[in-house]
Amino acid sequence: MTDCQEDGSPDLTPMELYEKLGAQGDKVRGLKSEKAAKADIDAAVQLLLKLKVDYKKITGQDYKAGCPPNGIELNSTGPAVEDGDDQVDPWNVSTTNAKGVDYDKLIVRFGSSKIDDELISRIGRVTGQTPHRFLRRGVFFSHRDMHQVLDAYENKKSFFLYTGRGPSSEAMHVGHLIPFIFTKWLQDTFNVPLVIQLTDDEKYLWKDLTQEQCQRYAVENAKDIIALGFDVNKTFIFSDLDYMGSSPSFYRNVVKVQKHVTFNQVKGIFGFTDSDCIGKISFPAIQAAPSFSSSFPQIFNERKDLQCLIPCAIDQDPYFRMTRDVAPRIGYPKPALLHSTFFPALQGAQTKMSASDANTSIFLTDTPKQIKNKVNKHAFSGGKDTVEEHRKYGGNPDVDVSFMYLTFFLEDDEELEKMRQDYSSGALLTGELKKRLIENLQPMIAAHQERRKQVTEEMVKQFMTPRKLDFNF
Amino acid sequence: MTDCQEDGSPDLTPMELYEKLGAQGDKVRGLKSEKAAKADIDAAVQLLLKLKVDYKKITGQDYKAGCPPNGIELNSTGPAVEDGDDQVDPWNVSTTNAKGVDYDKLIVRFGSSKIDDELISRIGRVTGQTPHRFLRRGVFFSHRDMHQVLDAYENKKSFFLYTGRGPSSEAMHVGHLIPFIFTKWLQDTFNVPLVIQLTDDEKYLWKDLTQEQCQRYAVENAKDIIALGFDVNKTFIFSDLDYMGSSPSFYRNVVKVQKHVTFNQVKGIFGFTDSDCIGKISFPAIQAAPSFSSSFPQIFNERKDLQCLIPCAIDQDPYFRMTRDVAPRIGYPKPALLHSTFFPALQGAQTKMSASDANTSIFLTDTPKQIKNKVNKHAFSGGKDTVEEHRKYGGNPDVDVSFMYLTFFLEDDEELEKMRQDYSSGALLTGELKKRLIENLQPMIAAHQERRKQVTEEMVKQFMTPRKLDFNF
Repeated sequence: MTDCQEDGSPDLTPMELYEKLGAQGDKVRGLKSEKAAKADIDAAVQLLLKLKVDYKKITGQDYKAGCPPNGIELNSTGPAVEDGDDQVDPWNVSTTNAKGVDYDKLIVRFGSSKIDDELISRIGRVTGQTPHRFLRRGVFFSHRDMHQVLDAYENKKSFFLYTGRGPSSEAMHVGHLIPFIFTKWLQDTFNVPLVIQLTDDEKYLWKDLTQEQCQRYAVENAKDIIALGFDVNKTFIFSDLDYMGSSPSFYRNVVKVQKHVTFNQVKGIFGFTDSDCIGKISFPAIQAAPSFSSSFPQIFNERKDLQCLIPCAIDQDPYFRMTRDVAPRIGYPKPALLHSTFFPALQGAQTKMSASDANTSIFLTDTPKQIKNKVNKHAFSGGKDTVEEHRKYGGNPDVDVSFMYLTFFLEDDEELEKMRQDYSSGALLTGELKKRLIENLQPMIAAHQERRKQVTEEMVKQFMTPRKLDFNF
Repeated sequence: MTDCQEDGSPDLTPMELYEKLGAQGDKVRGLKSEKAAKADIDAAVQLLLKLKVDYKKITGQDYKAGCPPNGIELNSTGPAVEDGDDQVDPWNVSTTNAKGVDYDKLIVRFGSSKIDDELISRIGRVTGQTPHRFLRRGVFFSHRDMHQVLDAYENKKSFFLYTGRGPSSEAMHVGHLIPFIFTKWLQDTFNVPLVIQLTDDEKYLWKDLTQEQCQRYAVENAKDIIALGFDVNKTFIFSDLDYMGSSPSFYRNVVKVQKHVTFNQVKGIFGFTDSDCIGKISFPAIQAAPSFSSSFPQIFNERKDLQCLIPCAIDQDPYFRMTRDVAPRIGYPKPALLHSTFFPALQGAQTKMSASDANTSIFLTDTPKQIKNKVNKHAFSGGKDTVEEHRKYGGNPDVDVSFMYLTFFLEDDEELEKMRQDYSSGALLTGELKKRLIENLQPMIAAHQERRKQVTEEMVKQFMTPRKLDFNF
C-alpha cells in the first residue's frame, strides 16, 4: 500500500467504499484461487490497494474486512451477517423488530430456499403424514436441497438426520427443544437413523468452563433429549470430547475439512480475528464432520455416499454453508438443511431465549407455579393498556409472546386460528391468552419432567455408545 | 491509526523501528493479558499507532509483524526466524555458509542454552555412562531445562522421552536416524519410557498426499525406527490419524492447547498467513500434546505431573517454545529439550538432506554399491584440487561432508581426531577419507536393513498399540 495518492473514489460514501472493498477483496481471492493470469491478479490487487488508500482518506481508519465504517466494531466471534438491525450468526441473534428477525430477508441473504406450500404438500404426499405444525406454521421456514432428499427418498434412496446442541449449561429451556421435537418427527415419519452432536469442545473453547463441566452438561442435556422419546435403535448421541477420541474415522474427516478451509474463509464466514484462539478457528470442521456418513462407520458400514439432512435453527447455517462448499472437494455429498426461526424470549422476539437469564425463558425444570408466574409477569403482551381499549381496538398477536409460544406448542390449528382472530378483534384478552398458554405449558413440562426421570444413566450410556443402528438403506 | 502526524522517530532506521514496533506490540499484549489499567493500555496503544505511522512514512509500507522492512516476504509456512543467510523453521533450513548454520547464533536467537562441557560431564556422572558421541561432538548442542531434568532424576524423580517424525515418504535417510539413535541411547541410559509421534496428519495437511499414503508411510517409517532396537516394553509409537481417534485424553489435551494459543501467536511463531488452511493453523497443538503425560493415561496411570524430555533437531524448537509457553497455563510441567544440529546433505552443509532428492542423501535402502557411488560422486570435499596441492596445503575438514558424516557415525574419538589432523595437514587425501566413510556406512546400513527385515507387521502392531509400559516412577 502506498500513501499520498490522489483520491480516485470521490463520490462514494464510506459505506459504499467499504462494500466495494469487500467485493474487490472477493475478486482478488477468486482470481487467486482460480490461478488466473498474474497480470489480472496484479491489476485487481492494485485496485484493492487503491481503494484501501481512498477508504482511509475518507474515514481516517484502516479498512478491515468485517468492520463497517459506521463505528460498529465486530466482537471477536462474529457477526458474519448483519442486515439493518438484524444480526444472525452462531453466537448472536438480535433484532430491533418486535415481530422478530426478518426471515424472508435472511433467506435472500443466506441464499437458501423458502419452504413454500408446494414443498410442505410434497412432504405430506411422500410420507403419507400430515406435515408437522412447525412446517404448517413456518417455524421451519427455509431449506437447502430438501427436494433432492425427497426425490431420492421416492426412489428408495434413504438419508440420515444430524442435529446437535452446544451444552453450555445444565438447564435447557423450551426453545432448545424446537429442533429436537422436529427431528424426532422426521425420524418417526421417514424412519431414518439420527446422529446428535453435543459440542462440549466448542463450549470449552468459547466459555469460561472446564472440560469436565462441559462434559457433565453434555450428559445432562442428553437426558433431556432422550426424554423426548428418540428411538435408541435409530439414534446415536455423542460428545465431541469423547467421540473424537473414540473414532479415527471421525478425526480423519475433521482433518479433511480442515485441509480444505482457509483462515480467510472462516474469517469471512464467522468473523474470527487474529486474536481468536486456534481452537475456535479450526472448530467449524468439527461441526461439519457429522454431515458425512463416513464419520460413523459403525452405523453406516463404512458407506461414504449417504445424504445427510440437518434440521437446525437458521443461526447454524454458516457452518453448513462452509460444509456444503467443502463436501464435493473431498468426495462427499452436500448435506441438505431445514432451518427454523428462533424461539422468542418471554420479553419479546427481539432476541433469543438465554439459558443464562432465568426470566427470559421457561426452563424444562420449572414448576407449574414458576411457569404461571413467568408467563403472567414476563410474557410480552400485544394487547392494549386497558380492557376497554383492548375490547375496542383489539390486540396484536404478531408481537404477543404468549400467542407466539402457542404457535409453537398448540397442535390444534383451528383453535389457534380462532385465538388469533379473537385476540385481534379484542374478544380475547391478554390474561385469557396467557391462561391458555399456561394450561398448555404446565402439563407439557410436567410430562417432560416425568419422562426425564425415567432416563437412567444406563440409557444415556446406550444412546452414547458407538454402535450399529437399525435402518434399511 | 491516524494519518499525517509529525514524525516522532526521525533517527531510527527502518529495521530499528521495526524492532521497536515488535517490542511495543508485545508490551500492549502483555498489558492486556495482565488486565492492566485502561489508561496504561491506551497510552501503550497510542505509542504503537504512532510508531506504525512513522514506520509507514519511512518505509512506504504498512508495518506487518513478521515482515521485516528489508523486503523479505515470509512464505506461507514460515520462516519464523531468519538471520543473515541462515533460515531455520520446521519447514525450511538453509544457509549460505559451507560449515552449516551458525548454531551459536541460533542459541541466542531461540533463547535456549548451550550444552557445555559441564552439562556433558554431569550427564556422564549422573548416568555412570560415557556421554554419547552426539554429546561429545556437539551434534546435540542446545537444551532447555536439562539441568532440571537431572536434578529431579538424582532425586529419584524420573521423566519420559518424546520424539517424532513427519512421515512424508517411505524412504528414510541416515539423517533421519540422528534423533532416534540419540533417543535410544537416552532410553537405555536413563531407563525411561518413550513415546514417538508420527505426524501423518501434518503431512496430509502440508503435502499433496492422501491420508492413506501418509498412514502407509507412518507404518513404513515405524519399521525403520523399530529396527534401531527400541525396547517394546518401554516404547509407544503412534500415528496421529490413528491415536487421536483412539484416545479421548489426547484429544482433550489438544483442545486445551488450542484454547490457549491465538492465531496471532502461531502467525508469529510459524509464519502462518490468512491463506493457510485451518488444519495447519491448529496443528501445532497436536505436536504439543505428547509433551504432557496425561495424553497417555494408559502408559502413565492418569498421572499429569511427569516431566517430558524431547530430543529433536533444532528446527522443531518453535513447536516447543509454544508448548512451554502454554504448559503452566493448563497446569502441566514444561517439557525439557535437547536440540541437535542438522545432518548435512552430501552436497554440503548449506542445506538439510532431502527425502525427495535421492542424490542428496544416503537412504536406508541403499545398496553397498549405491553408497559407494553416492559418496564418491556427490560428497562435497574440503580437499584441494590436486593431490600435490592437497599434500602441500592440507584439506578443510570443517566443510568436508565425508568428515562431517564420520563425526556422526564413527564411534572412535581417537581415530576421528587423527583423521582431522591428517586431513588438515594433507597426509590424508579426500579419496582415503571417502573410503573410510564408505567402510563405515556400508556395514551400518546393511545391518540396519537386516534388522528391518526382522521387523514384522505383528511387531509394528505391538509398538503401536496403546498399552501400559514398563517403568518405575
